[in-house]
Amino acid sequence: MYTIDLNCDMGESFGAYTIGNDEAILDLVTSVNIACGYHAGDPRTMRQTVNMALNKQVAIGAHPGLPDLAGFGRRNMAITPAEAYDMTVYQIGALDGFIRAEGGTMQHVKPHGALYNMAAQQEKLAESIAEAVYRVNPELVLYGLSGSRLIQAGERIGLRTASEVFADRTYCRDGSLTPRTEPDALISDPAQAVAQILQMVTSGTVCSRDGVEVKLKAETICIHGDGEHARVFASHIRDMLIAKGIQLQAAGHRARY
Amino acid sequence: MYTIDLNCDMGESFGAYTIGNDEAILDLVTSVNIACGYHAGDPRTMRQTVNMALNKQVAIGAHPGLPDLAGFGRRNMAITPAEAYDMTVYQIGALDGFIRAEGGTMQHVKPHGALYNMAAQQEKLAESIAEAVYRVNPELVLYGLSGSRLIQAGERIGLRTASEVFADRTYCRDGSLTPRTEPDALISDPAQAVAQILQMVTSGTVCSRDGVEVKLKAETICIHGDGEHARVFASHIRDMLIAKGIQLQAAGHRARY
Amino acid sequence: MYTIDLNCDMGESFGAYTIGNDEAILDLVTSVNIACGYHAGDPRTMRQTVNMALNKQVAIGAHPGLPDLAGFGRRNMAITPAEAYDMTVYQIGALDGFIRAEGGTMQHVKPHGALYNMAAQQEKLAESIAEAVYRVNPELVLYGLSGSRLIQAGERIGLRTASEVFADRTYCRDGSLTPRTEPDALISDPAQAVAQILQMVTSGTVCSRDGVEVKLKAETICIHGDGEHARVFASHIRDMLIAKGIQLQAAGHRARY
Amino acid sequence: MYTIDLNCDMGESFGAYTIGNDEAILDLVTSVNIACGYHAGDPRTMRQTVNMALNKQVAIGAHPGLPDLAGFGRRNMAITPAEAYDMTVYQIGALDGFIRAEGGTMQHVKPHGALYNMAAQQEKLAESIAEAVYRVNPELVLYGLSGSRLIQAGERIGLRTASEVFADRTYCRDGSLTPRTEPDALISDPAQAVAQILQMVTSGTVCSRDGVEVKLKAETICIHGDGEHARVFASHIRDMLIAKGIQLQAAGHRARY
Repeated sequence: MYTIDLNCDMGESFGAYTIGNDEAILDLVTSVNIACGYHAGDPRTMRQTVNMALNKQVAIGAHPGLPDLAGFGRRNMAITPAEAYDMTVYQIGALDGFIRAEGGTMQHVKPHGALYNMAAQQEKLAESIAEAVYRVNPELVLYGLSGSRLIQAGERIGLRTASEVFADRTYCRDGSLTPRTEPDALISDPAQAVAQILQMVTSGTVCSRDGVEVKLKAETICIHGDGEHARVFASHIRDMLIAKGIQLQAAGHRARY
Repeated sequence: MYTIDLNCDMGESFGAYTIGNDEAILDLVTSVNIACGYHAGDPRTMRQTVNMALNKQVAIGAHPGLPDLAGFGRRNMAITPAEAYDMTVYQIGALDGFIRAEGGTMQHVKPHGALYNMAAQQEKLAESIAEAVYRVNPELVLYGLSGSRLIQAGERIGLRTASEVFADRTYCRDGSLTPRTEPDALISDPAQAVAQILQMVTSGTVCSRDGVEVKLKAETICIHGDGEHARVFASHIRDMLIAKGIQLQAAGHRARY
Repeated sequence: MYTIDLNCDMGESFGAYTIGNDEAILDLVTSVNIACGYHAGDPRTMRQTVNMALNKQVAIGAHPGLPDLAGFGRRNMAITPAEAYDMTVYQIGALDGFIRAEGGTMQHVKPHGALYNMAAQQEKLAESIAEAVYRVNPELVLYGLSGSRLIQAGERIGLRTASEVFADRTYCRDGSLTPRTEPDALISDPAQAVAQILQMVTSGTVCSRDGVEVKLKAETICIHGDGEHARVFASHIRDMLIAKGIQLQAAGHRARY
Repeated sequence: MYTIDLNCDMGESFGAYTIGNDEAILDLVTSVNIACGYHAGDPRTMRQTVNMALNKQVAIGAHPGLPDLAGFGRRNMAITPAEAYDMTVYQIGALDGFIRAEGGTMQHVKPHGALYNMAAQQEKLAESIAEAVYRVNPELVLYGLSGSRLIQAGERIGLRTASEVFADRTYCRDGSLTPRTEPDALISDPAQAVAQILQMVTSGTVCSRDGVEVKLKAETICIHGDGEHARVFASHIRDMLIAKGIQLQAAGHRARY
């Protein structure tokens, strides 16, 4: 039987500022990535989000980002591998404080935004993030872009990894995502999105935008929770995956292979 | 045999800014309180300070402060008990990330500056901080001003506590510290400081500034590490305590009573 | 002919976080207080808000707050008068950069949240804020709570001031606002709110919650813009004031008296 | 008669953290670049530094940086031109608040660290910074790396510019600085540094590391103030320039050409 994890970013509110519809999206996913106060999130939001996730029995992960609240962690910064290590340890630890206080367990770590993208491409950065995760807790699962440097670094150091794919994005011949600047970058039809995921999950391949079959590991799907449209899209995908007999399961619940 | 803990604030550098002489002071103390990034400190400093403390086999504690880097956590802020709870959990967790990554164990938590002072006087705030510590890890020792609300709250919730006294401050008849605005607030003579500590440790009393014997629990002494003078003062006190046969020992190493 | 100024806080978005409905509320008021990046706001929001206000020909003021983005500047902080002076100069200057870049002129300064409340009561803080405003530009109008220390300090140093009253709050016998903890603190009926304002504007008095007529200067009314309800309430008040023949006019447009 | 400006970064302390020896270096330079609170500096430091500079009759400039206190503004960030514009306006305005409060005038703007480097190379960023300076006050002088995109953008928009050269760095054949990774990147001999400056000032050329004469405009020299060694080096250069009959003069004091 095939299984897949659905993950979503969460806990991105800050002080008087509210973002996202975390409660609603929690019913759709099997894992959540909770912001840790660097690119978004604050201690109260972290506590409340951890609490909600535990109540819904959704697996919890840390979502460390760049120290750039003003840019929501989306702007690349020329940080050193040591800085990436340190900010990853810090943020995992901070979130774990709340998880422990609530009696739960952290399942995974998924870098956010620009840190995620940089870690997908820069080997040293990827290695330092993987090392940070491993040293805090070698049982954590490292989420990263399928086929990325981050996944490779995680595997090398001995972490379990979850290769992430996107339901609403098309792929290039080399397995990378079609840049958002291209007209065919996004998939807006839920049926097409589900078809792509089914192929990824069942055959380990994806059909590139120019018609080539590309190998690709799909263990977790990134769901976007911001906005009513995204929620409905996610809901459709979820329903169709279930209808096709795919089991939805947090990545950490799979047997270690 | 009498024992006492010597603790010192540490890890207060930030980015390009260096403060303190942490390496030198580590040889004098049995416990250190490491800043967690709110009032001072940053991830790199936290990692390096944890590392140094582990190398010197000095017990490590979190030193959570108010979110006020510009004011070094010394300005009172009207935070709610829930906010105090959340920022305490966050900071303990963040530091614990580094301690776990380095293979160590956190011994204690001591609030910093204005948070320490507010927690000494405000019962609700004290309770929320004690609860934060307890929920993250009930084995942690809570450091607070001797006789304060924070120590009382810690005891009520079931934490081990360490009552802190000051070597370089005189005391009032009610057991509180003489306000710094008074001319006799500070003790600058190391011999007098040691005499006061010896009395505190051996008889559980202190002689108030107006000559009254006051009951006072002394389990840990706050050592100041900033500046050459402070370091020499601390060194004298340490030597004299040892000469008097007082054992220096981290608070968490005492048997649970 | 009687005149009154309607002012509203604005420009409180930050990075990816949006708050308020600034465009809609701009049609209702004669002055806006724009956040300057300490308690809320960021450079982009400041530029955009200045631009909108200039397009609508609404008078612009700086809205300096405490350095507490996490608490939206609503938590009292024990800052010194010198710190209040410095943060006021900084924030006025920062906003003025955008106003000058857009070819406009700053009309006024109104402290935000906890800084506003502390400046209403603490004489030294009030004086340092008034001095900051005066030294940057003695032509600026200082907005403050009617009858407060801030208004007094502004008058003493030679600034024009605008005494602020509230349409949706009841008053005590001593001219202070009824604490929000009291059941009769808020006025929810627009007609009652307008009646209170009319009395303030035309007779310089307000009827206290316990029925006493109290002297009170009313030169500007604080309008709340957050939420559809607040906007409708503000709109009603505006329409009724106009219907009663009260002229709406920014405080700085009045002749110097 | 030849003239040159000596400029130095200043006002980089923050809260409890002190950096630099601003008072001593002020006697050596003709212009100072004051940090504005983004990469370093805080309102109190800004006020005090403005004050010192005015007392010493040294020309004052804003030193806007990236919003990265933890990295001291030295880490490249992928900001948009609009973001560069906004953060430049904000920081110029903030510093100008203090200058106006002290009765002075701002002479110039020099971007800091990574923002300086990015503006030297990226045309759109350079243009947006030049536009920010121009729109706040077209009389300001824009300081930038000699031959850089920033100087070109400043000239295009109609600003006076000051082309900056370095006394302690060697140059490549294309007029760029020898990368710090090369063994011959730094000049440590004051006599050699002065000879290079004299050539730049008097003949508008520099001798590249591989012996080619390169055209180069030299209007202001960057002096480093951190550390005793740097201060002595700067002092030597200053004395030798004076001995050679070069007049030291702030860039803004030159006649408009």
